[in-house]
Amino acid sequence: MTPQPNPQAGAAVKAADRAHVFHSWSAQELIDPLAVAGAEGSYFWDYDGKRYLDLTSGLVYTNIGYQHPKVVAAIQEQAATLTTFAPAFAVEARSEAARLIAERTPGDLDKIFFTNGGADAVEHAVRMARLHTGRPKVLSAYRSYHGGTQQAVNLTGDPRRWASDHASAGVVHFWAPFLYRSRFYAETEEQECARALEHLETTIVFEGPATIAAIVLETVPGTAGIMVPPPGYLAGVRELCDQYGIVFVLDEVMAGFGRTGEWFAADLSGVVPDLMTFAKGVNSGYVPLGGVAISGRIAETFGKRPYPGGLTYSGHPLACAATVATIGVMAEEGIVDNAARLGASVLEPGLRELADRHPSVGDVRGVGMFWALELVRDRETREPLVPYNAAGEANAPMAAFGAAAKAHGVWPFINMNRTHVVPPCNVTEAELKEGLAALDAALSVADEYTA
Amino acid sequence: MTPQPNPQAGAAVKAADRAHVFHSWSAQELIDPLAVAGAEGSYFWDYDGKRYLDLTSGLVYTNIGYQHPKVVAAIQEQAATLTTFAPAFAVEARSEAARLIAERTPGDLDKIFFTNGGADAVEHAVRMARLHTGRPKVLSAYRSYHGGTQQAVNLTGDPRRWASDHASAGVVHFWAPFLYRSRFYAETEEQECARALEHLETTIVFEGPATIAAIVLETVPGTAGIMVPPPGYLAGVRELCDQYGIVFVLDEVMAGFGRTGEWFAADLSGVVPDLMTFAKGVNSGYVPLGGVAISGRIAETFGKRPYPGGLTYSGHPLACAATVATIGVMAEEGIVDNAARLGASVLEPGLRELADRHPSVGDVRGVGMFWALELVRDRETREPLVPYNAAGEANAPMAAFGAAAKAHGVWPFINMNRTHVVPPCNVTEAELKEGLAALDAALSVADEYTA
Repeated sequence: MTPQPNPQAGAAVKAADRAHVFHSWSAQELIDPLAVAGAEGSYFWDYDGKRYLDLTSGLVYTNIGYQHPKVVAAIQEQAATLTTFAPAFAVEARSEAARLIAERTPGDLDKIFFTNGGADAVEHAVRMARLHTGRPKVLSAYRSYHGGTQQAVNLTGDPRRWASDHASAGVVHFWAPFLYRSRFYAETEEQECARALEHLETTIVFEGPATIAAIVLETVPGTAGIMVPPPGYLAGVRELCDQYGIVFVLDEVMAGFGRTGEWFAADLSGVVPDLMTFAKGVNSGYVPLGGVAISGRIAETFGKRPYPGGLTYSGHPLACAATVATIGVMAEEGIVDNAARLGASVLEPGLRELADRHPSVGDVRGVGMFWALELVRDRETREPLVPYNAAGEANAPMAAFGAAAKAHGVWPFINMNRTHVVPPCNVTEAELKEGLAALDAALSVADEYTA
Repeated sequence: MTPQPNPQAGAAVKAADRAHVFHSWSAQELIDPLAVAGAEGSYFWDYDGKRYLDLTSGLVYTNIGYQHPKVVAAIQEQAATLTTFAPAFAVEARSEAARLIAERTPGDLDKIFFTNGGADAVEHAVRMARLHTGRPKVLSAYRSYHGGTQQAVNLTGDPRRWASDHASAGVVHFWAPFLYRSRFYAETEEQECARALEHLETTIVFEGPATIAAIVLETVPGTAGIMVPPPGYLAGVRELCDQYGIVFVLDEVMAGFGRTGEWFAADLSGVVPDLMTFAKGVNSGYVPLGGVAISGRIAETFGKRPYPGGLTYSGHPLACAATVATIGVMAEEGIVDNAARLGASVLEPGLRELADRHPSVGDVRGVGMFWALELVRDRETREPLVPYNAAGEANAPMAAFGAAAKAHGVWPFINMNRTHVVPPCNVTEAELKEGLAALDAALSVADEYTA
C-alpha cells in the first residue's frame, strides 16, 4: 500500500491527541507523538506519507505484523456474531481459543484463565500461587518487567517500579544470570549459571522456603535487555522450586507466541512451569487479551474451592476470536519457524557483522526475532553509552542514535543504552536487510560517542 | 432473530470450555456454565433455542444491548483500517474517543488516560493521586467493589477482597451512607448524610490528613447494592477533600455512561471529582477498554514530570473506535434519556408495585436502569434472606429465586441477598414489563422463605 500524504488530517489527529490523550510513561508537555495514518505488515506510515520499517513490533507484540487480512476478517466475523459476552458463560470463541492455547503450552498447562493483558495475568498468577501454597512472599529478578498494576510493578526489577514501590508488598528481588554484566564475577556461561542458581538457593534459604509462594521469571527477560538464560538455568530453578515447594511462574507475555522462534520461550529449554502468563503475541494485540496457563495441580486447588478473582472481560469473545485466527495463521504460514530460521540465518549474522564494524556495540544477544544490541562508550570497560535510567542531556547519545535510525526509515526500539531488534515474526529477509542497513547508518552516529 | 436449536454444537462448546477455560470467581469443578449461542439487543439464547431477557447487561456493561449494528460496523471498519497501534503515537480513533469522552465528563476532567478495564483504571487513579499529593494512604468505603488487581481489590469493601488482602497496602475503609442498613443509627436520609460525613471527617482527622492521598468512592456503589447517596453527601465529600488537600476519585466503571440516566452518575449531584474512572459502558464492552479522566490540576503534575505508568494496549484503536461509535449511538438514539425516562415511568413504579405485594422485598432502591431489590426474611427486622457472603445450602433461597427467574425467561443479577435489575439502557417498555412479570413469579418463590 502506498501511503497518501494528508498533513491536514494528521494535524487534526495530533491536535485532539494533545488536547485530550494522557500518554503513558511520559511528561505530557514534553512529548510530541507522531500521528500514524496506517500500517501493513512490517511497516507503518505517518500523514506526510513517510513510511517506517517497524523494528519494534509495536511494543513487541505485533508478531504477525500489522493488519493481517485473515485475522482482520476473523475479528469482523466475530463482531457480527457475538462481539462480547460475560465470563461466566461458555462461548465458542472462548472455548476454542483456550483449547488452541492449551494445545501449544508445555506440559500440563491445560487450563486457561483469560485476562485483559500481561499485567493482570501476572497479578492473577501471583494470587493463584499464594492461595495454592498459603505462603506470602514472591521472588522475582532485578532486570525484569512484569507490568504496570500494583503487584506486577512491585515484581518488576527496572526503574519503572520505583515510583510505585511501597515496600514491595512481599516481593524479594534476586539476580538472574547475565554474563555480560555478571553480578557473580563469572567468566563463562557455565560459571554464571551455577553461581546464579547458588545465589537463588541462598536467597530462598535465607528468606525462608516456607514463606515463599512463587518464583516469577520472564523466560527471556524482555525490555530489561533480552538475556537468554544460559543452558541449565531454568531447569535449575525448576528443581529448586520442586525441592522447596515453590510455584514456578514463567512470564511469557513478551517472549511467548513465536518471538524466540518457538511457540513459547520455555520450549527452548524444555522446562515446564506451574503457571505461565501470556498476552501480546497471543493475538498480536489486535484485540486486548492476556492470560494465565495453569497446571493440573494448581487448577485442582480451585476445583472445589472458588478462585477469588475475576474481571468483566475475562475471555472476551472478540479477543478470543482474534486469538483463534492468529494461532491458525501462525501455524499455516509457518511464522514461528520463520522467526527461528531468519533469526539464525539473517538477523543474527547481520547483527554480529554490524558489531564487528561498530565500536559502539558492546554485546549482541538474543534468539529468533528477539535481539538486543548493547551500546557502550568503551568495549573494554563495557561502560554503557548512557547511564542507567538516563534522561534529558545525559541520554543524548541514544537520542541521536534513534533520530538517525528514523531518518533512515526504520523505527527503533530503545531502552536505556540498548536497541532491541524485534521485528514481526513474519518479517521477510529483504525487510531484515533493509533494517540492518539503517541500523548500520545509525550505529555510525552512536560510534561518535565512544571513547 | 429466532434462535435455531443446535444442541450438538452447544455440547462441543461446553466440552471445550470444561476442558480448558478457567472461570473467574468459581470452584472449577462445581460450575456448569450455560453455553450461549447468540445475543441481540436485550436478549441472548442458548443452543437449545431457549431465549433469555438479560436483566444483567452482562456484568452491568452492555448499556446499548448486544450487537448494536452501528457499533459492530464501526468495529469492522476500524479492524480493516488499523486494528492496533502502540500507545506512544497519535491515532485518530484514540484522539477522537478521548475528545468525545472529555466532552461529556463533568468539569475540567479533560485528559483521558486509557486502560484495558476498570481495575487498572482504579490502579492508575490511585497512583496519580499518590504521586500528585506525595501522600501514602487511600480511603475507600465498605460495601464497594473496585476491581480484581492488587490495589483495586485492596480498595474493595466486599468479601471478594478477603482472599487477596495483605494488610491492604495503605488502604483504610470507612462507612458510606446507606440508610436501610445504617451504621449511624440514623432514621432519615438527612441524618444519615450528616452522620456519614461526620464519620468520614473523623476518620480523616484520626488517620492524619497529611497522610491521605485520595478518597475513592463509587459514585453509586454498584455490585455492593446500588446505594444512591443521599442529597449532599458527595458535595460534602468534595468539601472535605478540598479542606484537607485530598484527591477525590469517583469510580464510574459501573455507574457511568448512561446507567443512572445521566452520562455520569456524578451529574446527578453536580459534583466534580479530581479523577474519574470508567470502563464497561464506555463502549458497552464490545472491545475491552477502561480509563481515567483527569482534571487539569492533576494533569499539570505530569506536565514536565513523567507519569510513571502505562500498558501496551493503552488507547487501543479498535476499543477506541467502538467507543466513538457507542457514544455516537447513545447520543443519536437518546439512550441516556431512555434510561432516565423508562427508569422513572416504568421500572421504578413496577418494582415498587412488586414490593407492595411480595413480603420478601425489604427495600427497593436505585435510579435510571440501576435498581436493587433487597430480599429479606422479615421486613421488620430486615434480616437478609441469606446471610452475608453465604454459599451452598445457606444460599438456597437466593438460588431458588434465581432458578425461578430463569424458568420464566429472564436472566437475573444476584449478589448475596439482592437481585439487581440492570437491563440495557436502551431497553423498551415492553421488555421491562416482561422482566417485571418474570420477577413477580420468582419473588413468589422467595416469599416462601420469609418468616
